[in-house]
Amino acid sequence: MDFASFLTSLVTSFIIFVVLMVLFACLSAKPGNNVVYYPNRILKGMDPFEGGSKTRNPFSWIKEALSSSEQNVITMSGVDTAVYFVFLSTVLGILVFSGLILLPVLLPVAATDNGVKFNATATTSNGTFNELDKLSMGNISENSPRLWAFFAATYWVSIVTIYLLWKAYNHVSWLRSEALRTPEVRSQQFAVVVRDIPHPPQDQTRKEQVDSYFKAIYPETFYRSMIITDNKQVNKLYEELEGYKKKLERAEAIYAASKTTAKPEGTRPSNSTGFLGLMGEKVDSIEYYNEKISEIIPKLESEQKVTLREKQLNAAVVFLTNRVAASSAAQSLHAQMVDTWTVFDSPEPGQLIWTNLKIRFFEREVRQYVVYVIVALTIFFYMIPIAFISAFTTLGNLVKLLPFLKPVVKIVAVKTILEAYLPQIALIIFLALLPKFLHFLSKLEGIPTESHVVRAASGKYFYFTVLNVFIGVTIGGTLFSTFKTIEKDPNNIVEMLASNLPDNATFFLTFVALKFFVGYGLELSRIVPLIIYHLKRKFLCKTEAELKAAWFPGDLGYGTRVPADMLIVTIVLCYSVIAPLIIPFGVMYFGLGWLILRNQALKVYVPAYESYGRMWPHIHNRVLASLILYQLTMLGYFGVHKFLYTPFLIPLPLLSLLFGFVCAKKFYPAFQKPALEVAANHLKEAPNMELIFRSFIPPCLNSDKVDEDQFEDALSHVSRSVSFA
Amino acid sequence: MDFASFLTSLVTSFIIFVVLMVLFACLSAKPGNNVVYYPNRILKGMDPFEGGSKTRNPFSWIKEALSSSEQNVITMSGVDTAVYFVFLSTVLGILVFSGLILLPVLLPVAATDNGVKFNATATTSNGTFNELDKLSMGNISENSPRLWAFFAATYWVSIVTIYLLWKAYNHVSWLRSEALRTPEVRSQQFAVVVRDIPHPPQDQTRKEQVDSYFKAIYPETFYRSMIITDNKQVNKLYEELEGYKKKLERAEAIYAASKTTAKPEGTRPSNSTGFLGLMGEKVDSIEYYNEKISEIIPKLESEQKVTLREKQLNAAVVFLTNRVAASSAAQSLHAQMVDTWTVFDSPEPGQLIWTNLKIRFFEREVRQYVVYVIVALTIFFYMIPIAFISAFTTLGNLVKLLPFLKPVVKIVAVKTILEAYLPQIALIIFLALLPKFLHFLSKLEGIPTESHVVRAASGKYFYFTVLNVFIGVTIGGTLFSTFKTIEKDPNNIVEMLASNLPDNATFFLTFVALKFFVGYGLELSRIVPLIIYHLKRKFLCKTEAELKAAWFPGDLGYGTRVPADMLIVTIVLCYSVIAPLIIPFGVMYFGLGWLILRNQALKVYVPAYESYGRMWPHIHNRVLASLILYQLTMLGYFGVHKFLYTPFLIPLPLLSLLFGFVCAKKFYPAFQKPALEVAANHLKEAPNMELIFRSFIPPCLNSDKVDEDQFEDALSHVSRSVSFA
Repeated sequence: MDFASFLTSLVTSFIIFVVLMVLFACLSAKPGNNVVYYPNRILKGMDPFEGGSKTRNPFSWIKEALSSSEQNVITMSGVDTAVYFVFLSTVLGILVFSGLILLPVLLPVAATDNGVKFNATATTSNGTFNELDKLSMGNISENSPRLWAFFAATYWVSIVTIYLLWKAYNHVSWLRSEALRTPEVRSQQFAVVVRDIPHPPQDQTRKEQVDSYFKAIYPETFYRSMIITDNKQVNKLYEELEGYKKKLERAEAIYAASKTTAKPEGTRPSNSTGFLGLMGEKVDSIEYYNEKISEIIPKLESEQKVTLREKQLNAAVVFLTNRVAASSAAQSLHAQMVDTWTVFDSPEPGQLIWTNLKIRFFEREVRQYVVYVIVALTIFFYMIPIAFISAFTTLGNLVKLLPFLKPVVKIVAVKTILEAYLPQIALIIFLALLPKFLHFLSKLEGIPTESHVVRAASGKYFYFTVLNVFIGVTIGGTLFSTFKTIEKDPNNIVEMLASNLPDNATFFLTFVALKFFVGYGLELSRIVPLIIYHLKRKFLCKTEAELKAAWFPGDLGYGTRVPADMLIVTIVLCYSVIAPLIIPFGVMYFGLGWLILRNQALKVYVPAYESYGRMWPHIHNRVLASLILYQLTMLGYFGVHKFLYTPFLIPLPLLSLLFGFVCAKKFYPAFQKPALEVAANHLKEAPNMELIFRSFIPPCLNSDKVDEDQFEDALSHVSRSVSFA
Repeated sequence: MDFASFLTSLVTSFIIFVVLMVLFACLSAKPGNNVVYYPNRILKGMDPFEGGSKTRNPFSWIKEALSSSEQNVITMSGVDTAVYFVFLSTVLGILVFSGLILLPVLLPVAATDNGVKFNATATTSNGTFNELDKLSMGNISENSPRLWAFFAATYWVSIVTIYLLWKAYNHVSWLRSEALRTPEVRSQQFAVVVRDIPHPPQDQTRKEQVDSYFKAIYPETFYRSMIITDNKQVNKLYEELEGYKKKLERAEAIYAASKTTAKPEGTRPSNSTGFLGLMGEKVDSIEYYNEKISEIIPKLESEQKVTLREKQLNAAVVFLTNRVAASSAAQSLHAQMVDTWTVFDSPEPGQLIWTNLKIRFFEREVRQYVVYVIVALTIFFYMIPIAFISAFTTLGNLVKLLPFLKPVVKIVAVKTILEAYLPQIALIIFLALLPKFLHFLSKLEGIPTESHVVRAASGKYFYFTVLNVFIGVTIGGTLFSTFKTIEKDPNNIVEMLASNLPDNATFFLTFVALKFFVGYGLELSRIVPLIIYHLKRKFLCKTEAELKAAWFPGDLGYGTRVPADMLIVTIVLCYSVIAPLIIPFGVMYFGLGWLILRNQALKVYVPAYESYGRMWPHIHNRVLASLILYQLTMLGYFGVHKFLYTPFLIPLPLLSLLFGFVCAKKFYPAFQKPALEVAANHLKEAPNMELIFRSFIPPCLNSDKVDEDQFEDALSHVSRSVSFA
């Protein structure tokens, strides 16, 4: 990629960004679009334009975002989102502090080196040497004393990173403890989940077994237990019922709408009973659905009874009346045989994955390792397509393969744009397909809570991205054939990476620019959700519920957002000293990201769950991993430059490892287990155990019709009188 | 070593053994020796000859040992000793089951191989080929189909070991849980130890800080706390006082003894006040010591006050009134910052190492790694002397170095015996010096309980023994020069070990025989303690207390016993298939060991502490490590024999690792932390918290004179009224 296409890429990205901003300014001002631009506020029952935005100034959102406090974010979007902002601001801080020193020092040092060895670099950079490269470390001659500046810069970036990471971990730890010591009663703080319950003795039911076990250990605080059941059947019926209820509502809405003044009796909607409602007998919809519903309800009720009585599994939720007791129970060993009666702290009721709770101890271990192997294979074999994509970087190759593109490509403007973006767009589309698969795999491991699955999937995605996109593109992009030589000699990889990095600097510059201009432009303007919403509203939605579903924004999705950001962190860190010009791009990415996502977090997205910042240790470790990759790369790159004092960089990765070790010892356990001093804080009111218990009943078992006595089988009632008293 | 000296060694060992047995039969029958042969019974207030031994049959002890149950051992010597016997009987079982198949199958297969390659073996075995070697795998020709028998034997030994280890772990886990669920009140089950307490706030004393922290978390079960103090000064005074008390008692006893009928007024003993009581002014002893005592008592009392008030450290013992609460507290995370308020389950009061409790979290980590490095260096540099010892195996070398031995060596009998035993004796003496040093190092790590220090030292000793004695002798013994070549290419070590093993078979046979005949003979006959006791009784002891100290037997000392046994396990396992003749020797070692130590455990040794079998996971892992070493050695040895199907042995070490992983997951945590279901068992009586609290006060602070109020400073009394109520 030459300098011209680099500039084209930047300019076009910027133009797209400006257009999207203008669109946002216009569209968000229309009250009809409020549900797209302010759903979080609306769902929380707030006025969309609360605060200073009464004037509808198109830039007021920036002021609002900047003036919002961390507490605002926690109130509107939870601790997890606040922690995500700690991540963004920490990285931003790292890049700003690094850039303040690196840019004014390294750029002149690099640009004024007269000892440029054009021929030497040409051999490695495959003839792509251009103006930008003059500002990079590649421009410094071998073993030049100027390398000392880059050497010091390597240390500076590391120290800044470690210092800010330390501060961030401290802060997040404080955030978590503050959130957990809340005086509010939270259901999950009074429950623990038990797995691997052994077979009940002959003379006991599962419920009796669980109750007697926990009553013996917690005679004073045990409230009640809820045996996990196999809900497959009952859930199917429940969903069928809900489906018909929605259809009935819709049919009634259509019928109501048809009652115009001209035709006051209206038209009763009808539908076919056959395949997909397209074939078969035509029937009156309202009657048909009512019939279906009254048909399913007794079935559901009897299935609920059967489920509660006969489909009890080897897991349970146990409720304790005391927060400290529950916190302590969640982290204590209960049984002498450690693979029985394993207990962990309950997540929010909705987060519990009932189907995974029955998986036994060692089966989970086996599943985990099997999934790891599958992920490793995925990472390894996806390398090949990515390498192909990188090989297509030249438009010539593409035209050869897809000759029908020839006439389009001949237009100069199109050609330049395509040349600038083609590989990046391919990469982005490619990466978008992956998260679902990784989420599925993580669930397969037997992880019992939704937030944990998201974290596990996010980790896999991170490894995938860094290994494939960063390392794959760096090494594969310039010389596809080197891929095979690395396979033969994997020890070479650091050196290979180091020597190939500078050639890909411009690729990654445009990649980052594309990400922040177009990515964040789309994010803020919400063009796609807006169009979808309006289309649905016009053609599909008939009822209020349908309309709400059409604009419901979902959550911030940091399971995929964090790995994507981490890729940028890795890229920017690794290039920070080699090509300091990337730092402003990184600052733009994280600055713009912070600003725009702040707006989105406050006004748009609705968090799906709250894990009180349990994502942080993973984020921390991955930033640290990026730092170590950067340090190793620098070791290799200084080696390539034949700098005699390269070994003095060896303390850096060791320091990073030591730092990681200290953090893991000092902070990590408090993210895994609830600390008792936090749980011991006073509560505003005595917990209503009956409500807490009810909140854990899944919707498919929570019918109004099902009388309470019917829960007795699986849902014990040992000390229920307590709660009624 | 040739066959003749091997036989000589065996026969002389056996003669020594018989002599020691006869001595034991005679000496143990004398009532005056009861305190040497039955101290454990006497201290427990039992009749030494309880049970069937009224007849004084010299073999009745065998019957008693064989008929004693595990419960007898637990009653007399505790769970730790019972676990040690599980270890002995498990290894015995492994060897018996292995031998039953291996001996009748492998010996004929080896002995009848006609394809013996004398010249081929002669090159590796350094000319020591003899009759014994004909019964070993070394006698089988390369890639012979007879190797299949050895191949199958390799699998058989592994499977037997894994099966019996599994059974043993299950059994020990049950033993531990049974012991912990005791209905007796045990002090340590109502206390937890807190370390890393942060600085108290300005307006609080340390005691207030600790009390308010734990009262907030355990409002119902918190009883009281005891702040750990720096007892260095007070301990010094206390020991001085105790010393003078003993001396006074002794002087009074001497004075009383001098009051004969001939001289009813007696002679008042006197002593010098100067250096070692040899120089300086002569004074009346009784007066002098009384004076000293009354001088020290007020000093001690004021120092006790100062210690309790001003020398409080950042650690405390916290007492909870409920066993489950204490068990749960011991394993729960208390503080959000994990390096503060770290809690662990209290050991028995006497086991707590007060001086180590103050060491802070990360300092402990650093100390641990520093100690590991020192131990690694020790292991590595002791290699050199051991290799020297092995090189001295020939008597010729010794005479050259120590010419004055020449006349002695000329006597044929002496020469043969020396030749047979010299290297082994050198080895045994050498190893006897080490445990103290390793114990010292382990204590330096900052480990807070005595039993844990013993375990840590034992682990270090194990690594030392296996690495130095086994691997060192095997490789260094035959060819000292190979030592250096290994250093250059450490990858070679398995092959080197495998090819050198058969040459050392006879060395290790005599080593094992010496260990069980002479070692266990000395153990049972207790000749050394007997002589020391009688000497002390005659010439030194004047008072009852001094006499008791002279015969007090100490504990079983399994901290050094286990590693010594483990060395035998490693040797026998590694040779089991190569030279199956070693199996009967191993059976003898563990059979005789079981029998004799059973006697000693029941009648002699007094356990110093009780850790409820926490040693077992370490024993288990080390037997497993020996098994893996054996499997790797066999892999190498089959390779040396050019057996084509050698790779089919690769699953074995993998299987062992998997087994270790499963055991670690299933059993280990219950050895680290107290399981709650165990603690939840009913107690016979309500715990007397005041007594429990008092049991933790170290003797130097526990003066009768010190009024209770004076403990207030460091020993809080928040809810003491409860215990008095």
